[in-house]
Amino acid sequence: MAEGFFDRLRGVARERDSVLCVGLDPEPERIPGGAAGAARFCAGVIEQTAEFAAAYKPNSAFWEQYGPDGWKALLEVRQGAAAGTLFIFDAKRADVGHTSAAYARAAFDALGMDAVTVHAYHGADSLAEFTGHVDRGVYVVCRTSNPGAADLQHLEAGGRPLYLQVAALAGRVNAAGNVGLVAGTTAPAEVAELRAASSLPFLLPGIGAQGGDLEASLRAAWNGDPAACLVNASRSVLYAADPGAEAKALRERMRAVVAAA
Amino acid sequence: MAEGFFDRLRGVARERDSVLCVGLDPEPERIPGGAAGAARFCAGVIEQTAEFAAAYKPNSAFWEQYGPDGWKALLEVRQGAAAGTLFIFDAKRADVGHTSAAYARAAFDALGMDAVTVHAYHGADSLAEFTGHVDRGVYVVCRTSNPGAADLQHLEAGGRPLYLQVAALAGRVNAAGNVGLVAGTTAPAEVAELRAASSLPFLLPGIGAQGGDLEASLRAAWNGDPAACLVNASRSVLYAADPGAEAKALRERMRAVVAAA
Repeated sequence: MAEGFFDRLRGVARERDSVLCVGLDPEPERIPGGAAGAARFCAGVIEQTAEFAAAYKPNSAFWEQYGPDGWKALLEVRQGAAAGTLFIFDAKRADVGHTSAAYARAAFDALGMDAVTVHAYHGADSLAEFTGHVDRGVYVVCRTSNPGAADLQHLEAGGRPLYLQVAALAGRVNAAGNVGLVAGTTAPAEVAELRAASSLPFLLPGIGAQGGDLEASLRAAWNGDPAACLVNASRSVLYAADPGAEAKALRERMRAVVAAA
Repeated sequence: MAEGFFDRLRGVARERDSVLCVGLDPEPERIPGGAAGAARFCAGVIEQTAEFAAAYKPNSAFWEQYGPDGWKALLEVRQGAAAGTLFIFDAKRADVGHTSAAYARAAFDALGMDAVTVHAYHGADSLAEFTGHVDRGVYVVCRTSNPGAADLQHLEAGGRPLYLQVAALAGRVNAAGNVGLVAGTTAPAEVAELRAASSLPFLLPGIGAQGGDLEASLRAAWNGDPAACLVNASRSVLYAADPGAEAKALRERMRAVVAAA
């Protein structure tokens, strides 16, 4: 794993001609068989979508709701995936430095994830414990896709909206070139504003069930680098009648945007 | 568990005449035997300190670094503790509403925790998924104890420091009376400022290894309510030659502050 995360992502994205990320968020009420059932289900989705997806993004919450068996199941999914399959652990972790170091070990060593999402609230010393793993990626949560995003993120902070301050902080801890930003597709105007302010790679969640605008967000984020515009779909792919067909259709929509750019 | 978390905490704090919270943060390099060893070690610390501690605060990072076995060990510690022992899951979780709902189920249902720490960055709709569990406590991370705290938290946001905006938001989601704030003892001036602005219960980490000021912070936070000023010590108790004696000594220092208030 000596190659950096974004170089690995760029390679897979080019090979599959895809900026699609598939979220692995199992729900007990939709998938029978508990945590083991969730693992089988998600392994199946990976197989069906592998041709069309550049990366997978398990969100820790959905695995943790199964208790200890959920972590076990997630590790099985990760270890069972084909070599080179990229996993972004959407864990949104953050704590003081000493504790963030343990979170980084959990994500990168215990679970073998390629990248992780983190909160910036603790500041640079906390983020550094993640970015110090230079062969892994670190996506900083910047502008979220939910209605409450405006409550704090849109506050005018030190002369600009807080999410722009977070983007600037993320840029400052990017010495190893392994830092990206999370920006919701429900806010394409803010995605455009962030792209104007930052050249970091973006992870764009919120299309599908959350109602994000795939085309407008990808157009706003696109900068010619296939590693810089990962668009995530979770429920819409996972619970589709045919996840492979849905992943393919999403990839085609994304290719159309990129082709027109 | 019909009684609210802060009522339960108030009861234990009065009974033990203590505002001490003991952090359960096992480190593989200090404790032999992997995750099972960590569970035995922490169960032993709980037994030795039970007389002097009002609550226990396992930080998820330290358990997750063991992988799936860590979650299993944490659940064993929780289930093995005497009835009525209060556990605060220091997990600092936050995501969009749908996902925060899964985090809340993980903390409260799967792990059986009495309270959880959360980030406010996603806003009110995210916090509501935790506070909706009205018999559990929700501590919102407000002013952290690490050096990087100033990077974002001290930005002037909408006319006041961001941490005061977070405190105000926490107050707005406190309809059920189950919300508190996390404020580091390394910043007693900010603790005082937060106490002037908010009547929510505080959880005060950072004494011991992080160098926080126990006396100044507790004095600043104290408002006569023993549920409103939980002071946490992790490494200094956990790795003391005699954890019981250390917990007792810390409780006495805290009692002295309260007695003089």
